[in-house]
Amino acid sequence: MIPRYSRPDMVAIWSPESKFRIWFEIEAHACDALADLGVVPKSAAKTIWEKAGDAKFDVQRIDEIEAVTKHDVIAFLTHLAEIVGPDARFVHQGMTSSDVLDTCFNVQLVRATDILLADMDKLLAALKKRALEHKDTITIGRSHGIHAEPTTFGVKLAQAYAEFERCRKRLETAREEIATCAISGAVGTFANIDPRVEDHVAKALGLTSEPVSTQVIPRDRHAMYFATLGVIASSIERLSVEIRHLQRTEVLEAEEYFSPGQKGSSAMPHKRNPVLTENLTGLARMVRSYAMPAMENVALWHERDISHSSVERMIGPDATVTLDFALARLTGVVEKLVVYPETMMANLNKFRGLVHSQRVLLALTQAGVSREDAYRLVQRNAMKVWEEGKDFLEELLVDKDVRNALSEEEIREKFDLGYHTKHVDTIFARVFGTEG
Amino acid sequence: MIPRYSRPDMVAIWSPESKFRIWFEIEAHACDALADLGVVPKSAAKTIWEKAGDAKFDVQRIDEIEAVTKHDVIAFLTHLAEIVGPDARFVHQGMTSSDVLDTCFNVQLVRATDILLADMDKLLAALKKRALEHKDTITIGRSHGIHAEPTTFGVKLAQAYAEFERCRKRLETAREEIATCAISGAVGTFANIDPRVEDHVAKALGLTSEPVSTQVIPRDRHAMYFATLGVIASSIERLSVEIRHLQRTEVLEAEEYFSPGQKGSSAMPHKRNPVLTENLTGLARMVRSYAMPAMENVALWHERDISHSSVERMIGPDATVTLDFALARLTGVVEKLVVYPETMMANLNKFRGLVHSQRVLLALTQAGVSREDAYRLVQRNAMKVWEEGKDFLEELLVDKDVRNALSEEEIREKFDLGYHTKHVDTIFARVFGTEG
Amino acid sequence: MIPRYSRPDMVAIWSPESKFRIWFEIEAHACDALADLGVVPKSAAKTIWEKAGDAKFDVQRIDEIEAVTKHDVIAFLTHLAEIVGPDARFVHQGMTSSDVLDTCFNVQLVRATDILLADMDKLLAALKKRALEHKDTITIGRSHGIHAEPTTFGVKLAQAYAEFERCRKRLETAREEIATCAISGAVGTFANIDPRVEDHVAKALGLTSEPVSTQVIPRDRHAMYFATLGVIASSIERLSVEIRHLQRTEVLEAEEYFSPGQKGSSAMPHKRNPVLTENLTGLARMVRSYAMPAMENVALWHERDISHSSVERMIGPDATVTLDFALARLTGVVEKLVVYPETMMANLNKFRGLVHSQRVLLALTQAGVSREDAYRLVQRNAMKVWEEGKDFLEELLVDKDVRNALSEEEIREKFDLGYHTKHVDTIFARVFGTEG
Amino acid sequence: MIPRYSRPDMVAIWSPESKFRIWFEIEAHACDALADLGVVPKSAAKTIWEKAGDAKFDVQRIDEIEAVTKHDVIAFLTHLAEIVGPDARFVHQGMTSSDVLDTCFNVQLVRATDILLADMDKLLAALKKRALEHKDTITIGRSHGIHAEPTTFGVKLAQAYAEFERCRKRLETAREEIATCAISGAVGTFANIDPRVEDHVAKALGLTSEPVSTQVIPRDRHAMYFATLGVIASSIERLSVEIRHLQRTEVLEAEEYFSPGQKGSSAMPHKRNPVLTENLTGLARMVRSYAMPAMENVALWHERDISHSSVERMIGPDATVTLDFALARLTGVVEKLVVYPETMMANLNKFRGLVHSQRVLLALTQAGVSREDAYRLVQRNAMKVWEEGKDFLEELLVDKDVRNALSEEEIREKFDLGYHTKHVDTIFARVFGTEG
Repeated sequence: MIPRYSRPDMVAIWSPESKFRIWFEIEAHACDALADLGVVPKSAAKTIWEKAGDAKFDVQRIDEIEAVTKHDVIAFLTHLAEIVGPDARFVHQGMTSSDVLDTCFNVQLVRATDILLADMDKLLAALKKRALEHKDTITIGRSHGIHAEPTTFGVKLAQAYAEFERCRKRLETAREEIATCAISGAVGTFANIDPRVEDHVAKALGLTSEPVSTQVIPRDRHAMYFATLGVIASSIERLSVEIRHLQRTEVLEAEEYFSPGQKGSSAMPHKRNPVLTENLTGLARMVRSYAMPAMENVALWHERDISHSSVERMIGPDATVTLDFALARLTGVVEKLVVYPETMMANLNKFRGLVHSQRVLLALTQAGVSREDAYRLVQRNAMKVWEEGKDFLEELLVDKDVRNALSEEEIREKFDLGYHTKHVDTIFARVFGTEG
Repeated sequence: MIPRYSRPDMVAIWSPESKFRIWFEIEAHACDALADLGVVPKSAAKTIWEKAGDAKFDVQRIDEIEAVTKHDVIAFLTHLAEIVGPDARFVHQGMTSSDVLDTCFNVQLVRATDILLADMDKLLAALKKRALEHKDTITIGRSHGIHAEPTTFGVKLAQAYAEFERCRKRLETAREEIATCAISGAVGTFANIDPRVEDHVAKALGLTSEPVSTQVIPRDRHAMYFATLGVIASSIERLSVEIRHLQRTEVLEAEEYFSPGQKGSSAMPHKRNPVLTENLTGLARMVRSYAMPAMENVALWHERDISHSSVERMIGPDATVTLDFALARLTGVVEKLVVYPETMMANLNKFRGLVHSQRVLLALTQAGVSREDAYRLVQRNAMKVWEEGKDFLEELLVDKDVRNALSEEEIREKFDLGYHTKHVDTIFARVFGTEG
Repeated sequence: MIPRYSRPDMVAIWSPESKFRIWFEIEAHACDALADLGVVPKSAAKTIWEKAGDAKFDVQRIDEIEAVTKHDVIAFLTHLAEIVGPDARFVHQGMTSSDVLDTCFNVQLVRATDILLADMDKLLAALKKRALEHKDTITIGRSHGIHAEPTTFGVKLAQAYAEFERCRKRLETAREEIATCAISGAVGTFANIDPRVEDHVAKALGLTSEPVSTQVIPRDRHAMYFATLGVIASSIERLSVEIRHLQRTEVLEAEEYFSPGQKGSSAMPHKRNPVLTENLTGLARMVRSYAMPAMENVALWHERDISHSSVERMIGPDATVTLDFALARLTGVVEKLVVYPETMMANLNKFRGLVHSQRVLLALTQAGVSREDAYRLVQRNAMKVWEEGKDFLEELLVDKDVRNALSEEEIREKFDLGYHTKHVDTIFARVFGTEG
Repeated sequence: MIPRYSRPDMVAIWSPESKFRIWFEIEAHACDALADLGVVPKSAAKTIWEKAGDAKFDVQRIDEIEAVTKHDVIAFLTHLAEIVGPDARFVHQGMTSSDVLDTCFNVQLVRATDILLADMDKLLAALKKRALEHKDTITIGRSHGIHAEPTTFGVKLAQAYAEFERCRKRLETAREEIATCAISGAVGTFANIDPRVEDHVAKALGLTSEPVSTQVIPRDRHAMYFATLGVIASSIERLSVEIRHLQRTEVLEAEEYFSPGQKGSSAMPHKRNPVLTENLTGLARMVRSYAMPAMENVALWHERDISHSSVERMIGPDATVTLDFALARLTGVVEKLVVYPETMMANLNKFRGLVHSQRVLLALTQAGVSREDAYRLVQRNAMKVWEEGKDFLEELLVDKDVRNALSEEEIREKFDLGYHTKHVDTIFARVFGTEG
């Protein structure tokens, strides 16, 4: 997480202020439940909310205390006592630090995920808008980087939409994975705290109770969460690489938006670099890499060890902040992407009709020409196009052997681009529903 | 995938025979749909099933043809024609090789996942059985590898059950991810084949139609699939590491089953190594590692490139075969795990009651002793235990200052193990339901 | 490791036959040393070589024995005794299985590395040949996929040469890392075997003695080894991606060799796919992925656990076999690469001289024109080229304001490609020495 | 990189101040060379050093300029001109931003590596000191977490020393990998700048000239660098895991130092957690994970793309700062590690002599007892120890069948620990030389 690739709302989730606020909420909700159970006075629970419910916790002061106590949760509780007064002694009863830390981490991840889901919605909206706009914009489909058959630019974007819709669904599943709460005390036995406290806090914070926590919330949940972010990052990479390809000098079918005042744009119009999508490619590598330590975090020793903690202090913010930034950046790229339909068509026609050779080959065989002969006929005309720059259609029309098998109309029909786009509506209906 | 870590059913899914059988089914179902649409004769579709529906494809013969044609699908189709006769010319109409290859790969992954799900059910059954058996077997809970508070061995296993139940659910989700079919022709536009063929084949094979395939099924699906296997492998590692710890010479609370005849077992009873769970730890590393190339496979160029193929030829079999083997091995380890409740209790009592010091400390403060004094009282008795080998309970009972605050009964109550296990029922009900 | 991506010499290193042959050599050399030390009879050591020195070990027989003994080294020793007779009892004295297994693994890795080094030499030779051939073949250099400044195709290949020369050196270092031998007995204390035996075996096998083995050779060595292979794979990916880019339909500056008879080559001359380099891209992902489990293997428990073993049974063969195949395939691609200098020049001139705009801009400012004015002058001519298809040089020559600052000769000089290639000799001398 | 796991010297290397200082040095040294070549006035080169050689660059001011120019190097040069005056126009002649950025990044990595090397020396010193101290401290060697044969604690530490000495050497090699300089201009052809400038700057900064840079320094170098850090991190993990194991409650052969005032230390003497080494385990996971994006960075497109940049802005600081912190923390742990030789001996004797059963077995066979009989004899005595808590030596001494084969003296000799440590001197000499 570095400022250059960060956005404030996501960064705020990981600030000390947010953390202490969440710690307070966990403690205060737990007090409510303890009061309901008669373990602590109801008045104390009330006082805690009244005195500290709107308080801004003094991060510097807590740091000072921690410098002495060497324990972050105790430092916080000490500071809380400074604000709340004597009733603070009823806070944290029967709980362990892990109850607070693990539940807080999950609350932060849930909130981070809510931002990511909102990001995803914006990206999906941008993709849908541009897909519909270019539903019928003919472009050459490429396999292996080589011209294959025509498709439309809208179909490319519809694919991206479908992919990110899957990513959105994965993100929802990942959110469920980590939306759990543990208030179960040392080694998770509830020896010192009633399980109903956990249920209350979970409900109050929009979480569910972790079925079996063992002082920690099990880390397979977080492994799945960060692995999911890694997959989403990989989809960001895919679309970014697509755009980088389209912006290549020789292709130039689309470009990242380049503001009029941007350095060098007009004196060197040939030198507009896809720096945003290149940047996204790199960020994707980073987000992906965090999946590995998250998976290694799963095998904690016995009921818990703390090896996961240093990892999560890093990848918690790093992965979510970077992915938030990347999704927003990609959305901007898609929204403002400059598309060049004429170049798409020019590229498609680069080899003067050769792109239709396969259809011609098929038509010849269907017209009764043997596979070998058909191949030979197509080949001799194709080579004229390839080597002499002739036009494929024109050559075919004057090739007697071809004409013996196919009429002019039949030949011309093989060059009809509509043939390739006739099911675009079907594809769009699949992706966007009937409204598409 | 090496024989040592393979089981035949999973290996069979990845055999050439299985692959060609699935290829045939895809082609034959597609022919049915094409026949319904009037594109090919109904009689041809029927003939294909009749002639080849039960045929065993000759892998060696197909290899011979491929050596000439340099194309695996064409080689298969040529061989199919040898079996079916002239009607074979109606096979594969309007399709690309990718339609066959990608759909086949997904069918293989689906079938592999069904085996993994069955494996998982066996593991869950074993865990449940052993968890119920040891629901009340007291053992020391450990944080940081250090004695913390008592729990039960059943709770440990219930945790593992809950974790693998999550893994099972993730596996179901992963199965859905890759249970899709693409019969969409070059660059996925359906130019040469009606989308209804895809729907028919999908249904016949228990798949859904891929909303937008671009000659390939998008690889974010497979990234998610293999990432999920990586997470499951990490959970296997966790339980394996737990067992390895329990089998340590100094701990010896549980052991992998060691058959009576096994080399060295009785002449060196102290030297029974947890080799199965160590092996599982290594296998987990491997399965986890496959997530990374699977994620790198997502960003194919434009409509498709073939860089994913070599990766998948390796990790498809490697990941599923290894995970199948690992789940089965772990199930065997759990089923036959030798548990030593007496050692668990002996270990718990290793420091003659010190494990209860925190409860005593709390009781003293609740009895009105100041935090500092309570600490000092516990400390001076604890040090006698630690340094002189005294018994903590006995020391407390004769410490006048302690007795001024707490009665004998109150002190003894702090050493009651039932205090720690009183919510085990709650935990089991959460994990196994009311039947638990 | 799958046959499709395997070459026989490397595969042979990992065969059971090779393994047992190496085991024998370790045992027989150890016997020699033990005989020299008077621990076993000299006659026995001699007999062992005589009876088994040229023997072909019966893998099936050893498997049968292992099925009973459940121990691979004991099975081998039993079979060896069948060949050698009573003197076989002097084999393996004071050694542990790990002495044999770990030393054998390193011997296999050393031999595998020797093949990789030979592969690397062939690749370097191919790169050098083609680099010299195309030393002066002008091509456009690209940053961000966008035309930047001219360079030569030879410089591109010289870069690749320099990169693989570094890889070769890394491979040599990696070979040293794992060229060690351990014959140190249980937990590595030499309690049962004299350290001089280790020295003897090490020397005989071209290894050095591991300073401290603890029953196992420490796995940081192997982590470094496999990480190095991962870096080499990444360099393979780089060159492969370069070639894939050059073969793109719109670029087509170079192509993988396409044999005349290859399917579709002439009927669809526009559809020659860079399938070899795409395949290499995927193989690179695999080789890279093995670095991660190799690093996780380092932290074995105490003196040793066996979790590394299952990982190494897989990645030992997989990484070396795949890298060997990849290096050879890449060498073939480089050797036969079809290069199109005319297309390179045509692409360079795609924007009719705009590629020289930066030099013109600089010349104007050096001639005293203010930066703003120079920019405006270049811009107005550049836009005519960009939007109206004019020629940049011609436009500049007739632009009065430009001509006020620069003479025709001065302007024309800015379009001289020799300006960009004047230091190619320097670069080649750096890479290939004076002979280059 | 987060403050909690950072040390100031390493952090300082990555500060904007350091970066701008290095940028200045690169530019000023380049000016010197350009002046020597007569390209810029010597006076200008001199002025630049005089005016800015000791200047503190105003980071905030540069940020302000960058907010306008959107280009970091231009912003810096603009600010430099504010300091230097008109002569600043001679700065950066013929160079590209990459020349500055890439060379600076390598300078930062070199300086970071120098800190890491110093860290490593301290760690090695600590390991050597403790190894010599405990050269003869007998402890049980463990394979699979199970007691195997005796060794000494010094041998354990000597192994760690040898491992980190290898790591140090790897770090030196890694330093060489990235100690290169590129001042080669756009696409690296030296069209606008004489190669002698590069040589001069390289020499001035303690680097070597990159043989072929293509606007960027090739990223295989950095991949190798970060992979090496990943291996070092894995060695840190190994030693950390060893210590965590030794501190387990049931083992307790060594402990991280616990200061007298540390919370809970004396009231709960059984509850001292190895939190430092657990933390190191997590940090190792992070440093290791950075190898993967670094390897993915290698395959930049053509002469360069900028996808590597976002990755390196993160992992450059993150990997070096974290590793520096980890090495220092580990050094502290080693220096202050509390070692319990008595517990080591007690653990070794846990099974009352059974640890020597293998030697007895061997002695019996050497005394002529058949393997089967020897096994049976050992077994029946071992089981008495295992099941009835008898002493192995005493049982053997009174077992007639055993005594028929071995004298009392012979039996007692098998229980001599000196047998296992007789080659410790050899091992130490290998690791530490004759001084050891």
